Amino acid sequence: MSTDRAGGKPVQGEPVVDRAFALLHAFSDAEPVLSAADLSRASGVPLSTTYRLVARLVAWGALERRPDGRYTVGLGLLEIASLAPRGHGLREIAMPYLGDLADATRQHVLLAVREDDEAVLVERLSFRDAEPIHYRVGGRMPLHSTGVGLVLLAHADVETQERLLHRRLTRQPEGEPVDVTALRSTLAEVRRDGVAELHRGSPRPVLAVAGPVWDGRDRCTAALSVVVSDGSVSARHLVPAVRAACRAISRALGAPRAEGRPDTTTTDPVDST
Amino acid sequence: MSTDRAGGKPVQGEPVVDRAFALLHAFSDAEPVLSAADLSRASGVPLSTTYRLVARLVAWGALERRPDGRYTVGLGLLEIASLAPRGHGLREIAMPYLGDLADATRQHVLLAVREDDEAVLVERLSFRDAEPIHYRVGGRMPLHSTGVGLVLLAHADVETQERLLHRRLTRQPEGEPVDVTALRSTLAEVRRDGVAELHRGSPRPVLAVAGPVWDGRDRCTAALSVVVSDGSVSARHLVPAVRAACRAISRALGAPRAEGRPDTTTTDPVDST
Repeated sequence: MSTDRAGGKPVQGEPVVDRAFALLHAFSDAEPVLSAADLSRASGVPLSTTYRLVARLVAWGALERRPDGRYTVGLGLLEIASLAPRGHGLREIAMPYLGDLADATRQHVLLAVREDDEAVLVERLSFRDAEPIHYRVGGRMPLHSTGVGLVLLAHADVETQERLLHRRLTRQPEGEPVDVTALRSTLAEVRRDGVAELHRGSPRPVLAVAGPVWDGRDRCTAALSVVVSDGSVSARHLVPAVRAACRAISRALGAPRAEGRPDTTTTDPVDST
Repeated sequence: MSTDRAGGKPVQGEPVVDRAFALLHAFSDAEPVLSAADLSRASGVPLSTTYRLVARLVAWGALERRPDGRYTVGLGLLEIASLAPRGHGLREIAMPYLGDLADATRQHVLLAVREDDEAVLVERLSFRDAEPIHYRVGGRMPLHSTGVGLVLLAHADVETQERLLHRRLTRQPEGEPVDVTALRSTLAEVRRDGVAELHRGSPRPVLAVAGPVWDGRDRCTAALSVVVSDGSVSARHLVPAVRAACRAISRALGAPRAEGRPDTTTTDPVDST
């Protein structure tokens, strides 16, 4: 049982932690309020164990008990989550520049990072009169069919790119299959141009212009985008603002390439295949 | 089996969950990157157990392992935390109005909720050229010496108010004791006026103007404030904008009092004591 290993691969054998996180993951946008019975059912954790674990999670502020006896996710997690360098840490640095960009465009500004094969939205600024979009902070977005996703995928390691490109990718909600050859050349263009432009027809016609944020070790650590109603503004007008914001945030993160090297020097690991 | 922790949370029943959260709570603004040995030391969890728990937390995305073998808080927590109705849920509703307020004032806009005897910052919008302030999203602020804190305290239940007022309160960082009689009348004024105005001389002279956000059950669910350099703008000029934003967010939350009842009808549980 005591598998002592110096900081390596995940080991099996702490089912209580797994059960606690299974309970936390039972909550979703669609079901933000759950009873102990709901939690037990959704997570597969026996009801008596659920009660015990929920009591501990409430004590830590990870869950909150409502007056009706049901539970919601608690603020205690926000307090810890806000220390995640790729989440709120990045956000704190980027926020003033995102604010400038939102000010200039008065639409949506998104900031996302890659987590395995998806993008996670770490910030979203939306003007009240902007066309509604349905991405929420903390939520996941596909890499192959969003502006920020294309940027993150274009600058991901070759293994990640190939893993994704060998799947059967579709565009949601249309369900239309993605042409992998076309996607490869899109990714090459994104690397060459330093920005991604994505037009999507559904559920509403939108245009996303996205660019990369580089960190001090010259890695693409995040992507930001402006999302507008398609037809309202041309991409040509958004590109300079997106580029400038990307460069300013990269500079604040100590990125060598923000100090003069143009984005177009990015090496291109996929074009040659 | 007892987990002795300096943290003060009751420990009983599910020590593994408590230990996992003790590890997560070892991270702080000052120490966002920790080795397994650091984590063990800070949490009091034995090193062999720390390794096992850390592996599970990494597997769930609650921690991330850096190339140097040390750990940071992971994005997995942001994903769950973003479902907290009093955190990001409130934030999503409030964000457009906070954006308007930030636009109008071009300084700092804060949104906070009460968690026990402190305020927790759930959103902060800061203009790049605004005087720096040191509150971060997810971080805690005192109720008795911040604008949002005074509003949350003024509208808290009597038990919370009395518990806090019977403590020896000081203003930080000055360490100057708070006059409880003066604080009581300040709270009464906040309830009467519908806004709190707070001037603070240290570390920099700032003025905060704060107001309450009401929910559908007529409870003060959050407070928002504008924080500016003291002397730059008079409170008189900020009050209408703060009031309007509070009212708009309250209305979006379905608050009965945002539909016409003036804030001044608030009952006053403390004045009579």
